[in-house]
Amino acid sequence: MLAGKVLVAQGGGPTAVINQSLAGVVVEARKIPDVERVYGAFHGVRGIINEDFMDLTQETTHNLEEVANTPSSALGSTRDKPDRKYCNEIFQVMRAHEVTTFFYIGGNDSSDTIRIVAEEAAAANYRLKCIHIPKTIDNDLVVNDHCPGFPSAARYVASAFAGINLDNWSLPGVYIGVVMGRHAGFLTAASALGQKYPDDGPHLIYIPERDFETDQFLTDVKAAYDKWGRCVVAVSEGIHDKEGTPIITKLAESVERDAHGNVQLSGTGALADLLTDVVKKRLNLSRVRGDTFGYPQRSFLGCVSDVDQREAREVGEKAVQYARWREENGSVTIHRTGFYSVEYHLTPLEEIAGKTKTMPDEFIKPSGTGVTDAFRLYLRPLLGKGMPDAFRLRNYPVPKILSQQAAASE
Amino acid sequence: MLAGKVLVAQGGGPTAVINQSLAGVVVEARKIPDVERVYGAFHGVRGIINEDFMDLTQETTHNLEEVANTPSSALGSTRDKPDRKYCNEIFQVMRAHEVTTFFYIGGNDSSDTIRIVAEEAAAANYRLKCIHIPKTIDNDLVVNDHCPGFPSAARYVASAFAGINLDNWSLPGVYIGVVMGRHAGFLTAASALGQKYPDDGPHLIYIPERDFETDQFLTDVKAAYDKWGRCVVAVSEGIHDKEGTPIITKLAESVERDAHGNVQLSGTGALADLLTDVVKKRLNLSRVRGDTFGYPQRSFLGCVSDVDQREAREVGEKAVQYARWREENGSVTIHRTGFYSVEYHLTPLEEIAGKTKTMPDEFIKPSGTGVTDAFRLYLRPLLGKGMPDAFRLRNYPVPKILSQQAAASE
Repeated sequence: MLAGKVLVAQGGGPTAVINQSLAGVVVEARKIPDVERVYGAFHGVRGIINEDFMDLTQETTHNLEEVANTPSSALGSTRDKPDRKYCNEIFQVMRAHEVTTFFYIGGNDSSDTIRIVAEEAAAANYRLKCIHIPKTIDNDLVVNDHCPGFPSAARYVASAFAGINLDNWSLPGVYIGVVMGRHAGFLTAASALGQKYPDDGPHLIYIPERDFETDQFLTDVKAAYDKWGRCVVAVSEGIHDKEGTPIITKLAESVERDAHGNVQLSGTGALADLLTDVVKKRLNLSRVRGDTFGYPQRSFLGCVSDVDQREAREVGEKAVQYARWREENGSVTIHRTGFYSVEYHLTPLEEIAGKTKTMPDEFIKPSGTGVTDAFRLYLRPLLGKGMPDAFRLRNYPVPKILSQQAAASE
Repeated sequence: MLAGKVLVAQGGGPTAVINQSLAGVVVEARKIPDVERVYGAFHGVRGIINEDFMDLTQETTHNLEEVANTPSSALGSTRDKPDRKYCNEIFQVMRAHEVTTFFYIGGNDSSDTIRIVAEEAAAANYRLKCIHIPKTIDNDLVVNDHCPGFPSAARYVASAFAGINLDNWSLPGVYIGVVMGRHAGFLTAASALGQKYPDDGPHLIYIPERDFETDQFLTDVKAAYDKWGRCVVAVSEGIHDKEGTPIITKLAESVERDAHGNVQLSGTGALADLLTDVVKKRLNLSRVRGDTFGYPQRSFLGCVSDVDQREAREVGEKAVQYARWREENGSVTIHRTGFYSVEYHLTPLEEIAGKTKTMPDEFIKPSGTGVTDAFRLYLRPLLGKGMPDAFRLRNYPVPKILSQQAAASE
């Protein structure tokens, strides 16, 4: 039974489709006669403890649909990681506002937050339904086949590398592109979907699921360069050495950490610059370029997968249905069936909260520097309709004249 | 009169639509009965001196159309800058292959190359028609209202900043995005077209047309941050101090230069990192992030302006028409008429070659850190159809309960 006041919030990094989930919750909840109000909290749990609520019951359906198609978190987000005390404050605010149901759209940190809030409510004998709605470009939530937000970010990365590969073919050299991903290499691996012709880059892919060794990296780059006359490399920002030390910390003077204790990896070009420097100096190659793809990966206006949009919308809608018809709390999870469809389940919060999925071995080539066809088959349907394609001229060579004369006269 | 063998090549940095110009030349030239062969040179002038030609007369029209819609230079490109000796070699190859007409698609360095080749041919009394076809994301060719390639890159930058602005609204802080552009700020200024709501970023725009002073920059960022609670900054890679020294060289240990003597600005995150460091340290702000947009700006697969596509195609087609019906060499130039249409002229090579256009004062706010409505009016029609739009939730605030109780009990 869903009734009274319901609250929705968004946590963690924005995605291209996180507002689809928000619209899914709001539009569906507003249909239910006993739902009195749908509140949105500004900037996640931070907005709850500050009582910064907006009344989404008063928003037009038309504008909600426009917002659904807009990337980034329309309610604002937060990196706060609530402890017990913080969660008790959240709970006090919810009780004061007579909130009956809490929907939190976010990744694994957010799922852990909602788990703690649910425990606090239970301990206080307050009847609060807590539903977690998945979202993360990292694709690292367990149980889920994949996570809303990832397919659109993967589409961006695949499209960027498809273009980069053409650019690098045109003006050959070494190119290193650094992609988001702390523990899971899914998004970096998506660069492989930019390949079409057999010699297309990325020729090498480095992910956090494998230890990074600079000497091996240089050997790999040299071999690819010797083979193709150029080399495009995709690298996860989270690559680390055998001891687990992020490669980026080997360079950075001071390391910034967030409330979750995570080292700041994005918003700096340091890793790409470190890797291009080592290639320039030790392989003595010219035209070595590095880019850090940065925030456009998750927020670029106009690069979105329609499959991702649809599923992000549905997990929001399903969350309301589960809150209405099911007794227990949980996380809405996505499960693949066939080729390609999905179904949704309500999974206990404890099974999701704070856990991290990484790429399974079957998706990674034995060399550790590329992906398998199993990964391509996994990712392709997620990218959606209308993926642009790259074409080449066919080469009908014209016989040389001068160089033949020169050879003949020697 | 256009007859015999014609040669086409592409020079400089690739763009999203440079292959439209190539297809325009090839498709149009193949219609002319007296044209025997259409050759393409691999990798610009470098391919000419190596006699690396492909016979484009044998390519299917269907594949040419697919290549036209593919970004980056399908023939390959080069950064070689031919001197007299190099140009003489080019000329010897052309004479050996009985080339009658040379089409070179490129920016201001390429227009200078074709000017020298034309002079060499004239000095040797060899009848060679030379037509330059404009292309550059920098938008810095003189005479032209704008340059093919720029509108699509501008669309990318505007779309990226529209997304970045939403991201930065969601998780507030300082964000610095570094955009391509050595001498001309057009592409960086395009970030302003990502703004919709009055408080949208970029809040500050720094272009090479104005001297960059670190103290003033910090004052600007502080003021914007105090006003909006966040600050999005767009910066040209080519910003320099009063003496003309690029800001990037103040940091880089060693500076790389190309054959044109240009300092290497792209393919490194150094400038964004330098600027974020100085903001962090001197303004003592948290959550300061910097991205260098890098090569996706010019090659991202799937971000293209239809206006840009059409015009790039037409300058290729017009080049063939001029070669057929006009006696003189020249550069095809784009001229705006009305709101919005264009016409094309054949302009003497000497008027274009090696010259650089920068942003006129009327496009730059007196503060030097923003653009005028005249610039918005100039750029808007170039971005083409279907620019995505960003929407916000309207705020209907919910009255606070706990904080009022807390205030009442004090």
